[in-house]
Amino acid sequence: MKGRAVRIARIATDHGPRPVVQHGELWREIVDPFATNLAYTGIDHPCSDVRLLAPVQPTVVIGMAHNGSPAERSRPPQAFLKSVRTLTDPVTPIHLSSQLGQIHIETELAVVMRHTCRNLVAADIPAAVLGYTIGNDITAVDQIPLDEMMTQAKNGDGFTPIGPWIETDLDPTHLPMAVHVNGKQVAAADTGQLARNITEILVYLTHYLTLGPGDIVLTGCPGTFATVKPGDTGAVSVDGIGTLTNPIH
Amino acid sequence: MKGRAVRIARIATDHGPRPVVQHGELWREIVDPFATNLAYTGIDHPCSDVRLLAPVQPTVVIGMAHNGSPAERSRPPQAFLKSVRTLTDPVTPIHLSSQLGQIHIETELAVVMRHTCRNLVAADIPAAVLGYTIGNDITAVDQIPLDEMMTQAKNGDGFTPIGPWIETDLDPTHLPMAVHVNGKQVAAADTGQLARNITEILVYLTHYLTLGPGDIVLTGCPGTFATVKPGDTGAVSVDGIGTLTNPIH
Repeated sequence: MKGRAVRIARIATDHGPRPVVQHGELWREIVDPFATNLAYTGIDHPCSDVRLLAPVQPTVVIGMAHNGSPAERSRPPQAFLKSVRTLTDPVTPIHLSSQLGQIHIETELAVVMRHTCRNLVAADIPAAVLGYTIGNDITAVDQIPLDEMMTQAKNGDGFTPIGPWIETDLDPTHLPMAVHVNGKQVAAADTGQLARNITEILVYLTHYLTLGPGDIVLTGCPGTFATVKPGDTGAVSVDGIGTLTNPIH
Repeated sequence: MKGRAVRIARIATDHGPRPVVQHGELWREIVDPFATNLAYTGIDHPCSDVRLLAPVQPTVVIGMAHNGSPAERSRPPQAFLKSVRTLTDPVTPIHLSSQLGQIHIETELAVVMRHTCRNLVAADIPAAVLGYTIGNDITAVDQIPLDEMMTQAKNGDGFTPIGPWIETDLDPTHLPMAVHVNGKQVAAADTGQLARNITEILVYLTHYLTLGPGDIVLTGCPGTFATVKPGDTGAVSVDGIGTLTNPIH
């Protein structure tokens, strides 16, 4: 029970999904991952024994468009919403529709909000953010020319794997990130390449809309994408968090 | 208890929100508005006595872009997601941010989904739809030129009033609709003017994404919009359903 909790997950149990915090070889159940002081239920699970779920159940999932390189600072920031029904657990297979054309997986740093937030200023950000996880912003790229709002490109079933857990004590400024297909690294970058950083993104978004506990902000893809097809395994990784792997069916 | 339930609402009670069905002068509590056979709890409320809430709590709110006139059939269909955090109850005041510029209220027929739906064909639609309510798709129109995805135009707090209730037994083909500001009718149209009808919209959407119980589809605005400012009262109406009124603050 000692020490600062830094890794929060959500696991499947016989009694339903439960939030947990990692202590060594154990996942320890907690009452509320958003609480200022975490309360433990007293039920522990060996890490080797659990099935990890998407670490939160957001009400809103929002992504940043054209935020992948410093050059894109010349364009106004732009965000898109993803359907919460696209959320996917780690390891869960993603069944691609053959009608969608080419599919990209995209490694993105995902911000997990802690509080209800509106009109954030930079000084508010540390308290507003619960932590960081990995988002795979799966995109049917052939649909984008048909739909500039990307609704039909971004909302296929299983198109938003998140996880495997949330790191609460992480500086998001310069995190190496990569994408692997079938175990082979296909692209790598760094969160420092994002056109706008986490603070700028959250100030922008909350100027126009409310974010709340568990909401997910996908911060953009600095070239960390790869084409996948059925039979592949896609893995997206961010240093300091880990790797999120989903087989493609 | 006799007769087909045709009007479903959600009301505030001392025990929290409850789904109800109207029988004459009573709202009768039900267990589950999505059930095939409605089960009554035995608790009734005089209609004169209740506060109506948004009739469902959707997981997804999706709107149709450029669907307001037959001429727009020449363009491909296009949809946008709205944050569920924009949902607003009937009568609840909407506080406009002075930073957003001009604000439109928009009368739209809103489809309420009954089941989890994917790849619907026309014959599936009657069973897939629970009924119809009214959506006010509030839009900060000055933001649209700055954001082609309309995220910053469509997601202000209070920007999606829905209600006042759901009519389950309604032909959506040719419903007169109107928008009033401060009691004066400003625009009127008919759902028959929509570029794509309800069947076409649901077939299109579920080709690309999953909709589920309680999800809301805003079907488009056939000219039924009006500019509002603080101090106004905006009312959006669809014949066969009723009128949804919200003061603007």
